[in-house]
Amino acid sequence: MNTFGRAFRLTTFGESHGPAVGAVVDGCPAGLEICEGDIQAELDRRRPGQGAVTSKRSEPDRVEILSGVFEGKTTGMPVAMLVRNVDVDSSSYEPIKDLLRPGHADYGYLAKYGFRDYRGGGRSSGRETVGRVMGGAIAKKLLSRAGIGVYAHTVSIHDVKAGEVTLEDVIKNPYTNRVRCADLSAVRAMEDAIMRAKQEGDSVGGIVEVIATGVPAGLGSPVFGKLDADLAGALMGIGAVKGVEIGLGFRSAELRGSEMNDEFYVDGEVKTRTNRAGGILGGISTGMPIVCRVAVKPTPSISIPQRTINVKEMKDAIIEVKGRHDPSIVPRIVPVVEAMVALVLADHMVLSGKMGPRL
Amino acid sequence: MNTFGRAFRLTTFGESHGPAVGAVVDGCPAGLEICEGDIQAELDRRRPGQGAVTSKRSEPDRVEILSGVFEGKTTGMPVAMLVRNVDVDSSSYEPIKDLLRPGHADYGYLAKYGFRDYRGGGRSSGRETVGRVMGGAIAKKLLSRAGIGVYAHTVSIHDVKAGEVTLEDVIKNPYTNRVRCADLSAVRAMEDAIMRAKQEGDSVGGIVEVIATGVPAGLGSPVFGKLDADLAGALMGIGAVKGVEIGLGFRSAELRGSEMNDEFYVDGEVKTRTNRAGGILGGISTGMPIVCRVAVKPTPSISIPQRTINVKEMKDAIIEVKGRHDPSIVPRIVPVVEAMVALVLADHMVLSGKMGPRL
Amino acid sequence: MNTFGRAFRLTTFGESHGPAVGAVVDGCPAGLEICEGDIQAELDRRRPGQGAVTSKRSEPDRVEILSGVFEGKTTGMPVAMLVRNVDVDSSSYEPIKDLLRPGHADYGYLAKYGFRDYRGGGRSSGRETVGRVMGGAIAKKLLSRAGIGVYAHTVSIHDVKAGEVTLEDVIKNPYTNRVRCADLSAVRAMEDAIMRAKQEGDSVGGIVEVIATGVPAGLGSPVFGKLDADLAGALMGIGAVKGVEIGLGFRSAELRGSEMNDEFYVDGEVKTRTNRAGGILGGISTGMPIVCRVAVKPTPSISIPQRTINVKEMKDAIIEVKGRHDPSIVPRIVPVVEAMVALVLADHMVLSGKMGPRL
Amino acid sequence: MNTFGRAFRLTTFGESHGPAVGAVVDGCPAGLEICEGDIQAELDRRRPGQGAVTSKRSEPDRVEILSGVFEGKTTGMPVAMLVRNVDVDSSSYEPIKDLLRPGHADYGYLAKYGFRDYRGGGRSSGRETVGRVMGGAIAKKLLSRAGIGVYAHTVSIHDVKAGEVTLEDVIKNPYTNRVRCADLSAVRAMEDAIMRAKQEGDSVGGIVEVIATGVPAGLGSPVFGKLDADLAGALMGIGAVKGVEIGLGFRSAELRGSEMNDEFYVDGEVKTRTNRAGGILGGISTGMPIVCRVAVKPTPSISIPQRTINVKEMKDAIIEVKGRHDPSIVPRIVPVVEAMVALVLADHMVLSGKMGPRL
Repeated sequence: MNTFGRAFRLTTFGESHGPAVGAVVDGCPAGLEICEGDIQAELDRRRPGQGAVTSKRSEPDRVEILSGVFEGKTTGMPVAMLVRNVDVDSSSYEPIKDLLRPGHADYGYLAKYGFRDYRGGGRSSGRETVGRVMGGAIAKKLLSRAGIGVYAHTVSIHDVKAGEVTLEDVIKNPYTNRVRCADLSAVRAMEDAIMRAKQEGDSVGGIVEVIATGVPAGLGSPVFGKLDADLAGALMGIGAVKGVEIGLGFRSAELRGSEMNDEFYVDGEVKTRTNRAGGILGGISTGMPIVCRVAVKPTPSISIPQRTINVKEMKDAIIEVKGRHDPSIVPRIVPVVEAMVALVLADHMVLSGKMGPRL
Repeated sequence: MNTFGRAFRLTTFGESHGPAVGAVVDGCPAGLEICEGDIQAELDRRRPGQGAVTSKRSEPDRVEILSGVFEGKTTGMPVAMLVRNVDVDSSSYEPIKDLLRPGHADYGYLAKYGFRDYRGGGRSSGRETVGRVMGGAIAKKLLSRAGIGVYAHTVSIHDVKAGEVTLEDVIKNPYTNRVRCADLSAVRAMEDAIMRAKQEGDSVGGIVEVIATGVPAGLGSPVFGKLDADLAGALMGIGAVKGVEIGLGFRSAELRGSEMNDEFYVDGEVKTRTNRAGGILGGISTGMPIVCRVAVKPTPSISIPQRTINVKEMKDAIIEVKGRHDPSIVPRIVPVVEAMVALVLADHMVLSGKMGPRL
Repeated sequence: MNTFGRAFRLTTFGESHGPAVGAVVDGCPAGLEICEGDIQAELDRRRPGQGAVTSKRSEPDRVEILSGVFEGKTTGMPVAMLVRNVDVDSSSYEPIKDLLRPGHADYGYLAKYGFRDYRGGGRSSGRETVGRVMGGAIAKKLLSRAGIGVYAHTVSIHDVKAGEVTLEDVIKNPYTNRVRCADLSAVRAMEDAIMRAKQEGDSVGGIVEVIATGVPAGLGSPVFGKLDADLAGALMGIGAVKGVEIGLGFRSAELRGSEMNDEFYVDGEVKTRTNRAGGILGGISTGMPIVCRVAVKPTPSISIPQRTINVKEMKDAIIEVKGRHDPSIVPRIVPVVEAMVALVLADHMVLSGKMGPRL
Repeated sequence: MNTFGRAFRLTTFGESHGPAVGAVVDGCPAGLEICEGDIQAELDRRRPGQGAVTSKRSEPDRVEILSGVFEGKTTGMPVAMLVRNVDVDSSSYEPIKDLLRPGHADYGYLAKYGFRDYRGGGRSSGRETVGRVMGGAIAKKLLSRAGIGVYAHTVSIHDVKAGEVTLEDVIKNPYTNRVRCADLSAVRAMEDAIMRAKQEGDSVGGIVEVIATGVPAGLGSPVFGKLDADLAGALMGIGAVKGVEIGLGFRSAELRGSEMNDEFYVDGEVKTRTNRAGGILGGISTGMPIVCRVAVKPTPSISIPQRTINVKEMKDAIIEVKGRHDPSIVPRIVPVVEAMVALVLADHMVLSGKMGPRL
């Protein structure tokens, strides 16, 4: 299934080494001002080739809008967006096309479909997130019309943890540095952790946090369309993500009710004195900022030799994954996390009737 | 939205203090032997009133199958199941009907729907999980036909952690004790942690793990119907769950690729030497056991006084939540976690064509 | 699939000779006043046993609301409704349980599911429409809040055609007579046509028209959620319906554009001078009344001997379908047609954002 | 909503005078041999500019496959297809951009979205069917693997009716003539009817029949996923279609049960002696050929002056629709009808488990 969302829907297509990757957004209200520059700005944030800490693949990633926009505004019709793949070099995949890369989707695709596009991981490649980011760009623009902002940042890389940051830091800092960290004092150590792994042919994981501000109370639907359930599904569905938590998350398991509950008070509108719940109770937004964190595993592509099998001969083999890989996927996941959260929120804004067929 | 799943679908209905709670399972293949006893056995596992560690509400919870079964077998038609609510006492909710209970869904429902069934939390009550467990019972029965088992167990309550356990422990032990723990040596300490909190009018959280065995490789669909995304959505959608992780989960964020990747080998079929991924790579099952963990927050209903607001008068108030509440929801969530995982797996078995309209 | 609709969703369950039939409506806005009397009134309209022209099965069909209504209003939660089956007599089906009834669903169910509940047709029975009518009752009540009315009437039975009628006739007359005809002068001839067929062990078909008034312009979504497409799917999905047309329907095939187009004019709001399109252009409502007609085939259950096969022995057989059958299903389909159109319109009112989570 | 289908899904995008039209097919099993030539062949069948009876717009309509095909076979990933719009001339729409064209979708779009892409009807243009035909091309190729064929043909244009034809005629003849008629002796009269209308600035409607052969028994799902309901929805959703019937359709309303029922017999497999039901009973295929007919209204774009309104000034106006329009849409709808029926059948083949993730 390559469509995400119920009312504001994103369909993505395209493989890493195919002709193009693309996205179709359906259900966006009419009247939203959007141009290729809006999409391009988000694409530029996920682009690699921005320094030693990311892959050397050079992807200009120029977006073309194919439909759904007339006289600078969305028409309510599907917005299709296309990015041609360039700088594609499949040669490094030829030698390992029959080897299962540990930690990758190779075996699952093979088991399910009988064969697979082995070039660069085909559709299971991180390149598929181009489509998500394009869809997310429209979602973010739409949300901004309702005063909603979505901001992700790296809170840890391997054993390096960012210090306390303010919301302002989270809004301003991440895209000023290559590890997408809001705590500028931790940037260097994070870069070092990545570079050390890279030099050893290895990779590292980390944690990304995302905050959504301005979300009105009342988003989310009992009992199987909960906002937190949708967010968890959206975030766990990003490649390399192995864990999702909302508010205090796993820490809440060690607390008592009196330590976990957020007390209500009135300040013009209803608020809570703390936000341990991360802005969602009973699956419905409370009006407080939404806070999620995702655990990102280390990039599975490493050049250290690993034991695996050759599926053609069904016998043991050794694999060394060459090619141009990010030694940590964490910085590049930051804009994807923002995109997915924006998509979920845009979907719920439409589902809840807070946004109709036109702005 | 009160329907879960795409091909094997569960619709639930009913409020805590209404006439009944129920479930409709649609898309179950024809020919599955099922009887009320099968459903009842699962319901009995989630029933409270089983000792001091759970609520005193006495719920016999007798299931009646209303449709979809003929001559002891499913017909392919929807299976509707009904449980009448008895022992309903709404009196303790009258005094607090205008107060927002901290940590509960009250405010979200009010913000969204304008008014709410305040009796026992209405539909946001844990009682809604009766429907999930009934649906899960059919899913589990169906999965057993394919050799798939789903087993959940409590791995921590507050600061008490279970020790290492074997798969056999997880299969055999949880329902022999009131905290649903597979490590029998930890049961007493977990009970004590719950009782201590209860005596102080407080509550505690914990962590539940679930293991699915016998899952064939190839379940899950790129890129927005991933098995891990669906599991995360299903599990985060259980009330009180604030975090979900798969395989090593958040621990993977601190690892290197060489420590995280599972190496492949052939042993009749393709296997991995370790299972840090928790049985899912690229969103598709690998054939290894699926392992997830969920963080359960402490029960929000506590009798310790808390500050809140009266929404009718929009002014500050103090609330003491009386009534019959579980001082820890963790033991009762164990069968619900099993149900949700079973529902996701049954859905994907049908979606993947491994199970058709009839067995 | 036993769920209908995208935003306002109806799930039905139950077999003709099982314990009960029921319905769950999900997505109805909160705050709609509804009581069992509202549902019962619609059920009474589809009830047989009202004279010689319909089946002798006596079905009191008492509805019980199980959830989703609190203090006389919908809460936004699923509304479950139950009708117990009584006066069930399966004895007449025993002798023919291995024979395929011509014109019935028997063979399809057998081919798909491998076995079937042969008692009274099981789920393929017209009794399933109890669930549709219950769901439609809520939809109609909701639509009435927006000034929308849905009115069906019989326009022909066999070779007897009703004369021209006014909208007022359609609103007032159908439920005053047993054939549900708005042209009172045609009632007797229609009854006679049915009785003649009955006396000969045969049955007759007919045509039902439905008119929806007060539908605002702008309902329906390009290009695969068109209002006319949804209506056609909903109406063709009623058992025994073999054709659906909107506006001039099949007559439009013989016209020229200059004879078919409706010219626009302004009369406070935008209107058309004629309504050959039946209130829908390009899949979107125009604000003019919506007009559809459905062709209903003659009841397939006839006592005249027919050639068929015994599927157990896979050899030729003769079948005479006894039991209590309607010699024409047309009058009883009238309220079902209303229900399906109301469900489609309620769905689109919510989908279009004209109705939100609460009234 | 711009996505069609549940398991085999088509998403289309693009406007008549935008940069491109396109389609994304999701859920096609892996291993289907497909190339651009397969798609192109179907596109060529819907292409105008093939003579006097169709529009003069010259659309080369060259398809490019962007994803989902590797080494000549589908991979199970979404297949995106793109056709660039060329020969676009919006000048004839400028003068009428504020006038509602009678019989067109203009007013609905305006009422719903507040503004619209008036160039060539934007998305409501028949040009959108390029996407349907591309999706249908893949569906047809997939169905051919299961021995299923889908064949449409024109059975009437205005008052000219084709004579009786054989299945062989329907398979062989339609694309040999410009009106897509299987009865070659009626071609000339149909062409004349179109030309007469054209010379008078008018247009004509007609009827298209579609036959699907080789469809296995058991497709379709009770009670809201019926095969006939899905077909009716798919066909009524084609622009200009105002009626759909299956089997004897509206004629069944005038028959008796003894005249309508198809008697069963055994001939290797279960068959019926007649096929008045059109291959579907109770919403499930019987194994007999599926037969549907659709009523196509006359093209609404006519150059004869019509009364309408100017929506900017909200006052009366006269419109003469110039531009390059088909004087009858019937011939060009023939391949679209095939596409939609193929899409429904492919969807149900996957839904029913008869086709899995890979061939």
